[in-house]
Amino acid sequence: MNTGADDSAEEALLVARAYLSAVAEPPAPALVEFIAEHGALLAADRVHRGRLPSRVFDEVQARREHVRGRRTLEAAREDGVRLVVPEQHEWPRQRFSCFAEATAVGLAEVAEPIALWVRGAASVGVTVDTSVAVVGARAASGYGEALAAEFGYGLASAGHTVVSGAAYGIDGAAHRGAVTAGKPTVALLACGVDVDYPAGHGRLLRSITEQGLVISEYPPGTPPRKHRFLVRNRLIAALGAGVVVVEAGARSGAGNTAGTAEALGRPVMAVPGPVTSSSSVGCHAMVRSGKAILVTRTDDIIEVVSPLGTAASTEVGGPSRTTDRLEQRARQVHDALDGAGAASAEQLARDSGLSLRQVRALLPALEMAGFVTQSEGGWQRCAP
Amino acid sequence: MNTGADDSAEEALLVARAYLSAVAEPPAPALVEFIAEHGALLAADRVHRGRLPSRVFDEVQARREHVRGRRTLEAAREDGVRLVVPEQHEWPRQRFSCFAEATAVGLAEVAEPIALWVRGAASVGVTVDTSVAVVGARAASGYGEALAAEFGYGLASAGHTVVSGAAYGIDGAAHRGAVTAGKPTVALLACGVDVDYPAGHGRLLRSITEQGLVISEYPPGTPPRKHRFLVRNRLIAALGAGVVVVEAGARSGAGNTAGTAEALGRPVMAVPGPVTSSSSVGCHAMVRSGKAILVTRTDDIIEVVSPLGTAASTEVGGPSRTTDRLEQRARQVHDALDGAGAASAEQLARDSGLSLRQVRALLPALEMAGFVTQSEGGWQRCAP
Repeated sequence: MNTGADDSAEEALLVARAYLSAVAEPPAPALVEFIAEHGALLAADRVHRGRLPSRVFDEVQARREHVRGRRTLEAAREDGVRLVVPEQHEWPRQRFSCFAEATAVGLAEVAEPIALWVRGAASVGVTVDTSVAVVGARAASGYGEALAAEFGYGLASAGHTVVSGAAYGIDGAAHRGAVTAGKPTVALLACGVDVDYPAGHGRLLRSITEQGLVISEYPPGTPPRKHRFLVRNRLIAALGAGVVVVEAGARSGAGNTAGTAEALGRPVMAVPGPVTSSSSVGCHAMVRSGKAILVTRTDDIIEVVSPLGTAASTEVGGPSRTTDRLEQRARQVHDALDGAGAASAEQLARDSGLSLRQVRALLPALEMAGFVTQSEGGWQRCAP
Repeated sequence: MNTGADDSAEEALLVARAYLSAVAEPPAPALVEFIAEHGALLAADRVHRGRLPSRVFDEVQARREHVRGRRTLEAAREDGVRLVVPEQHEWPRQRFSCFAEATAVGLAEVAEPIALWVRGAASVGVTVDTSVAVVGARAASGYGEALAAEFGYGLASAGHTVVSGAAYGIDGAAHRGAVTAGKPTVALLACGVDVDYPAGHGRLLRSITEQGLVISEYPPGTPPRKHRFLVRNRLIAALGAGVVVVEAGARSGAGNTAGTAEALGRPVMAVPGPVTSSSSVGCHAMVRSGKAILVTRTDDIIEVVSPLGTAASTEVGGPSRTTDRLEQRARQVHDALDGAGAASAEQLARDSGLSLRQVRALLPALEMAGFVTQSEGGWQRCAP
């Protein structure tokens, strides 16, 4: 790597990170550790020269003489793509701290990205500050897509950035919901941010960049590959304060994202659906096994991802019926008057099984509360 | 109480229990305790004479001079109803042991019944030996009723007796499923077993008695009352090894049964549904709060109610896709061949980011496994 003398320190860093980001296939745990140890400038120089520990060498050998940091960075910029690196203020430091914790317990495959290639003007760190990942099956049902759009709209409206993977089905619907709310949303791609993938989502990706961000750890031009989706999923899991799986079949990429989120210590949520729908099988299995919390409404999700006590919990409950207020014995007396016209206290005692003393004590209270009335024939119910 | 000298000991006991069952409105914790202490014969005699501790007296005062044990028992028999009492072999002793444990921790309202009025020839104890309660909303959806019928059929076919409350909606569908399977099912009523309630279920109740049982702790002729449904629910909860709530609104009797089951130490299960359905709100709330285990299939239910290790667990999983068997690095090499025709090991190394050494080691293994093949132009994928 050759950096000109007139480059600013930041520019040198960006060129170094651009090179490092292109030289190894993510996740590259040995290289990430090597950069953390030596700094990006020295690490890039040593990778280029090939003076490396063998673990790092294995990760970079194939590409180290073939990729160019400055050229990759400049081509990206010409295409409106910028590079965000850990040394910058907008790096989502807090969200990515989970990687350091995970690698500490030996989860090498969830290494932090070396850099992020970004389309969109907003600050990455600020945009994901209150974010929720919403993911799910590509082959989603209409039910699933409608819910994903509703959650996307609701979360975005409540100030929670929706993070997803821009795929067909649930991902796209969640992004669309957020875009419809006029709020930023973040799409994490498994290919370069200049690659329109999936092909039918070119317009959606462009509309996302207007307020939100399209992000990839893969340099521009990188084609999507099957394994890259799985590797990318760790960034979706890390960038959300929690992951909501709207629909997932028995085997799914969303299940993989949920598993990674769990490993990273993020709460996993799953949305139930008809047990007859194959698109909900994965969600139900996650809830059943205790991996995921069941959520049915945007408010449920906000409650899970909000620091304790900051979200207003809304209780599910039907309207209170009047006799519900009555204690058990009073209700027994009230029940005993069911349809039977007027009755004496003695009759009510026999019917309800309560003692005459109890019935005589309860009747005036019921009368005062407007439930019963006394006539010549005896006690009777008031009309509701 | 007056028992003739020629009555057998059992007959005397039945008459005493018939009297005690009619004299107090269930649950009658003080009376139940009094009977346990003195035996049914002596207890009935003392209730009749009115020589009682005041707690017991309060429970029996209103009816003790108005009900007749022998007359109630004989009228019931003439109508084909028999009385089952704790002193008999068929008493569901094991299932009801939960009441003793619950009263030990102060749950007086879940007292054991004094006797059971039964229509149907089968032994109560044997019939509920492997049983599951299936309950839910009266105002059920078509989805809920179809599932309740499916579970009823599936559980009954697998040898699990379905216990429910004979109400419209979920209860009725669950009973019907079991009847369709040609197996016994148990209906617990909140009124006398001679009262056709609900009116439209007379035929269902009669078909249940052919192989199964219609049971009530209320003597024949007792009309249904609102509070009796809540009291009855504890018997449904106790007589099932677990309770499945198929559909429940935000407030529901099924929720009450589930709460009682929880208090009695029985596992509660709930079936998910569309989040857009008000009939599933209660089920989702129970799962979300951790009160209920999510179940979607008959097998899930059997797994929960079976003693550990006796039910064959069936894993949810899609068909295994061939490349799923490949380890991560082998898959990266396989992915790198995506569509691109033939490629050299060097090209594959650059594309996959793996070292040339790794790629050279993986290619022969992939070839042997039938994933790739070598031609003059280089390596390429085999047709799937």
